[in-house]
Amino acid sequence: MRIPVAILGATGMVGQRFVQRLAQHPRFEVVEVAASERSAGRTYGEAAPWRLEGENPLAHLPVVPCDPDAVRAPLVFSAMDTEAARLLEPRFRDAGRVVVSNASAYRMAADVPLVIPEINPEHVEVLRGRPAGAGAIVCNPNCTSMPLVFALAPLHRAFGVEAVMMSSWQAVSGAGYPGEPSWDILGNVHPHGGDEEAKVAEEPRKMLGTLADGAFVPADFKLSARCVRVPVVDGHLVSAQIKLKGDPSLAEIRAALEAFRAPIPLPSSPVPLLRFTDRRDRPSPRLDASAGDGMAITIGRIEPCEVFTVKLFALAHNAVRGAAGGAVAVAELLDAKGLLG
Amino acid sequence: MRIPVAILGATGMVGQRFVQRLAQHPRFEVVEVAASERSAGRTYGEAAPWRLEGENPLAHLPVVPCDPDAVRAPLVFSAMDTEAARLLEPRFRDAGRVVVSNASAYRMAADVPLVIPEINPEHVEVLRGRPAGAGAIVCNPNCTSMPLVFALAPLHRAFGVEAVMMSSWQAVSGAGYPGEPSWDILGNVHPHGGDEEAKVAEEPRKMLGTLADGAFVPADFKLSARCVRVPVVDGHLVSAQIKLKGDPSLAEIRAALEAFRAPIPLPSSPVPLLRFTDRRDRPSPRLDASAGDGMAITIGRIEPCEVFTVKLFALAHNAVRGAAGGAVAVAELLDAKGLLG
Amino acid sequence: MRIPVAILGATGMVGQRFVQRLAQHPRFEVVEVAASERSAGRTYGEAAPWRLEGENPLAHLPVVPCDPDAVRAPLVFSAMDTEAARLLEPRFRDAGRVVVSNASAYRMAADVPLVIPEINPEHVEVLRGRPAGAGAIVCNPNCTSMPLVFALAPLHRAFGVEAVMMSSWQAVSGAGYPGEPSWDILGNVHPHGGDEEAKVAEEPRKMLGTLADGAFVPADFKLSARCVRVPVVDGHLVSAQIKLKGDPSLAEIRAALEAFRAPIPLPSSPVPLLRFTDRRDRPSPRLDASAGDGMAITIGRIEPCEVFTVKLFALAHNAVRGAAGGAVAVAELLDAKGLLG
Amino acid sequence: MRIPVAILGATGMVGQRFVQRLAQHPRFEVVEVAASERSAGRTYGEAAPWRLEGENPLAHLPVVPCDPDAVRAPLVFSAMDTEAARLLEPRFRDAGRVVVSNASAYRMAADVPLVIPEINPEHVEVLRGRPAGAGAIVCNPNCTSMPLVFALAPLHRAFGVEAVMMSSWQAVSGAGYPGEPSWDILGNVHPHGGDEEAKVAEEPRKMLGTLADGAFVPADFKLSARCVRVPVVDGHLVSAQIKLKGDPSLAEIRAALEAFRAPIPLPSSPVPLLRFTDRRDRPSPRLDASAGDGMAITIGRIEPCEVFTVKLFALAHNAVRGAAGGAVAVAELLDAKGLLG
Repeated sequence: MRIPVAILGATGMVGQRFVQRLAQHPRFEVVEVAASERSAGRTYGEAAPWRLEGENPLAHLPVVPCDPDAVRAPLVFSAMDTEAARLLEPRFRDAGRVVVSNASAYRMAADVPLVIPEINPEHVEVLRGRPAGAGAIVCNPNCTSMPLVFALAPLHRAFGVEAVMMSSWQAVSGAGYPGEPSWDILGNVHPHGGDEEAKVAEEPRKMLGTLADGAFVPADFKLSARCVRVPVVDGHLVSAQIKLKGDPSLAEIRAALEAFRAPIPLPSSPVPLLRFTDRRDRPSPRLDASAGDGMAITIGRIEPCEVFTVKLFALAHNAVRGAAGGAVAVAELLDAKGLLG
Repeated sequence: MRIPVAILGATGMVGQRFVQRLAQHPRFEVVEVAASERSAGRTYGEAAPWRLEGENPLAHLPVVPCDPDAVRAPLVFSAMDTEAARLLEPRFRDAGRVVVSNASAYRMAADVPLVIPEINPEHVEVLRGRPAGAGAIVCNPNCTSMPLVFALAPLHRAFGVEAVMMSSWQAVSGAGYPGEPSWDILGNVHPHGGDEEAKVAEEPRKMLGTLADGAFVPADFKLSARCVRVPVVDGHLVSAQIKLKGDPSLAEIRAALEAFRAPIPLPSSPVPLLRFTDRRDRPSPRLDASAGDGMAITIGRIEPCEVFTVKLFALAHNAVRGAAGGAVAVAELLDAKGLLG
Repeated sequence: MRIPVAILGATGMVGQRFVQRLAQHPRFEVVEVAASERSAGRTYGEAAPWRLEGENPLAHLPVVPCDPDAVRAPLVFSAMDTEAARLLEPRFRDAGRVVVSNASAYRMAADVPLVIPEINPEHVEVLRGRPAGAGAIVCNPNCTSMPLVFALAPLHRAFGVEAVMMSSWQAVSGAGYPGEPSWDILGNVHPHGGDEEAKVAEEPRKMLGTLADGAFVPADFKLSARCVRVPVVDGHLVSAQIKLKGDPSLAEIRAALEAFRAPIPLPSSPVPLLRFTDRRDRPSPRLDASAGDGMAITIGRIEPCEVFTVKLFALAHNAVRGAAGGAVAVAELLDAKGLLG
Repeated sequence: MRIPVAILGATGMVGQRFVQRLAQHPRFEVVEVAASERSAGRTYGEAAPWRLEGENPLAHLPVVPCDPDAVRAPLVFSAMDTEAARLLEPRFRDAGRVVVSNASAYRMAADVPLVIPEINPEHVEVLRGRPAGAGAIVCNPNCTSMPLVFALAPLHRAFGVEAVMMSSWQAVSGAGYPGEPSWDILGNVHPHGGDEEAKVAEEPRKMLGTLADGAFVPADFKLSARCVRVPVVDGHLVSAQIKLKGDPSLAEIRAALEAFRAPIPLPSSPVPLLRFTDRRDRPSPRLDASAGDGMAITIGRIEPCEVFTVKLFALAHNAVRGAAGGAVAVAELLDAKGLLG
């Protein structure tokens, strides 16, 4: 018996990725797809053309409104935009549903865990002991934070991170659909015009921080980010220049990274979780983003930094690991810990 | 009477840019185009197809070998690759020619000035007083250093730079022709596989350093660079996170940048030299690289840095300002200072 | 004294091209920029970010509504979308204005000339003798028809065209802004989903037809078009396989093409008007579209066709020659013929 | 027991695709990888960086020379360039090997079958009855012909093809590696500078022709092709405007296409073999080329042609179906027919 789930905001780019990732999931079964009023009443296939490879596996499902009265599944994945999420996710929580959200609205809320299952699974323990039938919101981080946090976590635990400079080369799918007009990005790159840098400056600290007496205490390093959109379809590449406590050698740093393992096996968590490349021109989104079925992180060019301790590149599939796939893994974690119902 | 000049390595990407930039120059006239042996004996139009917009203005010229016996012009622009430059530039110098080079071979040599005319024109004074008829090599910096140095120079003078983190989003024309295979870069980005980061770590320090008793003393800040190739035709975007001495405010920093002017007017030096954009998604190579006929630098997103003092983006046309156009401006500087012959 | 003109739909992609092309026009002066209600009341610079190279030359102008009561200029250029054009262009005409339109709404209307000034200037004679103060609508063709008609016209006159097979490789700017989502076109091409093929099948026949007793009689050849969008910024490449009457040789065909000249000199009409390339891999949009300040057509690969008489490629800048620049040239024609007032 | 096979030209783009496709093949096992002298002596992983997604499955194999004395496998796949193929493929054949070639050198040779296994499997019957131990060369067609022939074959059999106009939007991987310089194709398209159009004009006629008394009699229709390179990684889109005998209706044409089935099931031949899309903006290489594991053909926009009988688009993965995958399927056909030795 699989757990029935719904997808809120199912017609968008991340919504379709949820449908794709959940089509043959061992634990979850999509029984409802919800979207804004203008899609409601149509089938999912009619409401929005399928934009991914292959066929829409749920084309026949009717689209229902993003309303807890219309959606019955006890577990809902939210791919809604920020404003809709801000309004609607609390309604689902208050109606007793567990909301696993890819939206940014509640990521930094004091009572909401922001989780990468392989990094800070213990943060979801704030859900334990909630009253029977109580709902919850659990968030997935920003897609740019994703590869960065995977690179920082082993180093933060082994040595302690003091400061981070990050730059990104971000794919267009991170902006959803229609997202970036082709005129702006063809043969071009440009600084991210939104608040991506602010998100990246705070989300990793929450995830790498601790849960103490039910409160999330952020890690205390500083992070400066520069985010730039590039004409890549899928896959966010980031560079990190990292200042570590102590004076670890490059060999110690590499050893700490290579020793990292997921603490809890989950259906969507690949083995290996971190891939390391020794090629000077990699990682590279078109060739590396789909590794581990889009859920592995590829790390390369681990080198001495002239200013801080070490510099490296990390890459993740922004729409899979950094969005739908990451959120599904969060739900798998809740399931594995018995926190879903 | 214009000064007769030759172009060494004329058939390559930078060589064609030299031809394009010099086609109607007020002070220089291209009288010879030189290339490797396999091109010699053909006309310039036959030796290599024209790859820039418009028509090849020197298609009829015969191609001569890159040899001081075959080339007569007293001033030669070198667009040769590193290995050829290492071998041949000294021969031209020893034959009494002034070589203005875009190659990297001698940029860090103790007796070779590395010059951006608007930044460190005084460095060419090492040529003054050389024996009558003596040649010289003067170098243009790496195309990635170019926008960075323009952003750093006003701040270094006003406050003193302590450390710099740089990242780049670099166009494919920086690799010459054929350069980057399309398979590697279409819908993709990748870490620069060459020694670009090492060049960027040392060249700016030489240019922002001083000339004391005929020796170049580099500026003493540290610089860590990450260089990434992106699917852009022309235009290198860089981000810099900069640690400054003192604790200047953002207003003071912006004022220092805006006050910067070229010390010596030159035909190729545009007014304004630095352009400032207030748009959050700019500068952007496709729209900004050609400003000032490809010779202006565009700076944007001057913002507080969470880790260092300030962060900003800077952009320059790598093939014009960062290569042929920059080298032509160096020759204009030598001409203006009476150092050509 | 320049003629005051207004631009309707000034904030869109073609509207900005009109502003750019008219910034220093010898005969026309933009005195009003009009856009939809939501832009009215703001300055032109505020109403829409400038998306072309360089600076917005009319940023300070107030935006007025697209209404003949708000717009006073006697000559208006329309860059409105089809629906707005269908509704509003007749109002301007009925208010005594001459509307030169880039919209498709009235191109095939029986009383509206569809004009390329160098091809069928005589079609505008339908305006002659209209009552004093009477307005008119004159249309510019579809941007994909543009290069095709320039290739067909000399052959139709010299030999007679019997049938045409056309394919296109169309730039994204043809869809306006935001136009094509980057997700759909990055590293991709796709059949044009709109009615472009139908437009291309009929517009060339009207332009290459005759004006008899005040009626437009279309040329009687058949045309089958396949239109495909490609990840190119500006410049539509078309191939044409053409069946000609008689059995002209390739030399005769080439001679007919090369002999073609614009019948009436106009400020925006370049010399040469048609460029011919002998390179096998040209014409190519990025390198050829801007020839003749974006107003020249480049033709290449004139070769025997295995099925019809001849095949060739033709290229035009879709946003300049195929839109704003072409429409400006139409107005120049009206001016030259004394038909504006 | 799997049949031992070798790959000639294994380090190139198509060579790597062969390795990828054969890594887990049910009938063939790669035991040797051969390349030019400069690669010989190194391991396959050292000889050329892996350029496809995932890991090189044969990195450890030593590279041997492309010489029948160095290669022992009875079945060899040739991914050599044309000149090497012209020289070396006969040597392998004369040494008793069966050569299944992706090279163009012998495609039109009178004694060499040119085969798409689902289209003209009977052509390989020329191999039957050859002396024991005799070798053979069997060819795979040009990658641009591939989608075209799949679209033409059902129509040629049902109605008879009289004439075809074809245009292509071809991916860069068709040019191998390094292939197309990024400077030439970024934000650009250009006419194919090689002899692609000539290949497309003759290869389909051979495949759709008959085998009579051991001789290949080509189909008698005429074909005019225009081939254009576009900035797409993998996947050739073609349009065909087709003149058919009789006057079949669009419904009859569609029925003939939809009724087409592979005559012989083969491991690499997908079900369905032909996919039909009803979306106006499809097929599209990035989304459709990998259908059927890269071996399905996608057909769309089957519409009346204003000049001929019908027009449509067809798409195939050029590097899989149109190269390595297609050649593997040819070998599967030889195996299924007992013609391998």
